Amino acid sequence: MLDLYDYPIVVEIPVAWGEMDSFQHVNNSVYFRYFESARVKYVEAIEIEKFMKTTGMGPILSSTSAKFMAPLKYPDTISVGIKSTKLESGRILQEYGVWSHETSRLVAKGESMMVFFDYKNGRPCDIPEALRENMLKLEPHLAETQKQPEKV
Amino acid sequence: MLDLYDYPIVVEIPVAWGEMDSFQHVNNSVYFRYFESARVKYVEAIEIEKFMKTTGMGPILSSTSAKFMAPLKYPDTISVGIKSTKLESGRILQEYGVWSHETSRLVAKGESMMVFFDYKNGRPCDIPEALRENMLKLEPHLAETQKQPEKV
Amino acid sequence: MLDLYDYPIVVEIPVAWGEMDSFQHVNNSVYFRYFESARVKYVEAIEIEKFMKTTGMGPILSSTSAKFMAPLKYPDTISVGIKSTKLESGRILQEYGVWSHETSRLVAKGESMMVFFDYKNGRPCDIPEALRENMLKLEPHLAETQKQPEKV
Amino acid sequence: MLDLYDYPIVVEIPVAWGEMDSFQHVNNSVYFRYFESARVKYVEAIEIEKFMKTTGMGPILSSTSAKFMAPLKYPDTISVGIKSTKLESGRILQEYGVWSHETSRLVAKGESMMVFFDYKNGRPCDIPEALRENMLKLEPHLAETQKQPEKV
Repeated sequence: MLDLYDYPIVVEIPVAWGEMDSFQHVNNSVYFRYFESARVKYVEAIEIEKFMKTTGMGPILSSTSAKFMAPLKYPDTISVGIKSTKLESGRILQEYGVWSHETSRLVAKGESMMVFFDYKNGRPCDIPEALRENMLKLEPHLAETQKQPEKV
Repeated sequence: MLDLYDYPIVVEIPVAWGEMDSFQHVNNSVYFRYFESARVKYVEAIEIEKFMKTTGMGPILSSTSAKFMAPLKYPDTISVGIKSTKLESGRILQEYGVWSHETSRLVAKGESMMVFFDYKNGRPCDIPEALRENMLKLEPHLAETQKQPEKV
Repeated sequence: MLDLYDYPIVVEIPVAWGEMDSFQHVNNSVYFRYFESARVKYVEAIEIEKFMKTTGMGPILSSTSAKFMAPLKYPDTISVGIKSTKLESGRILQEYGVWSHETSRLVAKGESMMVFFDYKNGRPCDIPEALRENMLKLEPHLAETQKQPEKV
Repeated sequence: MLDLYDYPIVVEIPVAWGEMDSFQHVNNSVYFRYFESARVKYVEAIEIEKFMKTTGMGPILSSTSAKFMAPLKYPDTISVGIKSTKLESGRILQEYGVWSHETSRLVAKGESMMVFFDYKNGRPCDIPEALRENMLKLEPHLAETQKQPEKV
């Protein structure tokens, strides 16, 4: 599971028997719960909550997707990793990988886009600067992916 | 489905394919979601939300149970009814029935207890009088089940 | 909700209070359950089950995605429509739209890819011809999207 | 968490953020998923699956209940223990305890009844003798709770 080293945040979750559907595989909607558990941990790591309280700005999940590579069954434990791939002025693109401990295989990959929203003004906004710094501390490679606002 | 007439609130819900587990029946935990959907509708009918805002008091689910009479499968639609069976000073006992439209059978029965809580003072409290009146309007038979606070 | 006419299969689902997460919106993973409910209905409409029994071939969900346009809250009812956009030799691309009855707005869009799998031989396979015909009966426009196997 | 020593089977599960509902506590239906995860582990420990295959007899969840002692929130990890309290001719009564690692408190208690069913004959049946022995090996105290079939 070497590839997990690519992910700054990795969460380990036991597969619940009840997460399987009547095809006897973990249901597709459950993978988005796995992604979310990793994303929530990421968001904690960069201390978004603190910024939400002081600025009234916060992230909204704008889109998400999954690609299923292999079925997942109980009993198993998964590791789900999350990393950011693009940090733009008002949005963050992230990727996920889900590994089965039973098979040591990557069973699913995913993506999601978070956009920032200013709840006081009711409209999209830039990612607060201090938050951007926290992200760059956690994922230095992101510096290169930042789209600079154009100067005149 | 005559027995549904016993219930002041009845909610109709299509069974989702994904609610079945790998035994190919609706998973036991889903019945508690059905009960909850009926309970939320009941709580709306007696306008609890209004009292929560003005008094800072609200209901907490204290316990719940289900008895499964017959398996439920997709495709089907269920009707879930809720009625109160006991209205005491600080708590309400309620009962549920879940009917399958496919088989016209009662597939599950349930119970739950809600207790009232004063969030400002951080402790259990009596059910606000105006709320009690709303319940008696919806379910007049409850009058007999009220336990009177003892007088000295 | 005119756009729903574009979808050969539409399913109506009441939003459950318990589908909201602690941000007080329907959780992102629930939309994939909505998509699935529409997909299962589609799969019934083209009688896939019959083909699975006789041929041992069946569909596997290969990927799926959602784009969230507006938050969804209880109480509401949604209509989720599904249509196919591409019918290739061994796979079907489909699209989803989720409408809120409360706001008459499109609240989410989605996509998914199903691939066919021959469970007896343990490998991907073409979509059985009779099934393809059922799909074309339901969605005549698909004829143009079929990728012809190349002839020598 | 001393009381966990009373339980022959204990399962540790991280609380998922998405398991909280809009009251910002873990939703009541999720506790039944926790109970189930412990029950499935118990059922594995006594090797029920082997008996199901050879005898066509298996357990059915007949009823279940939960009592909620304290709210549970993300982030937390729970330990859920299961033990049997009564072993009768055709049914098993079990109890659950759910502990929060954050607060070291018992947050919920539960019960469930499993009955045995002979799928070949389509009716309830006795618990197979060899399975009963496995249970007594795991929980010797159960010997006293067995209701003997009456002899003439």
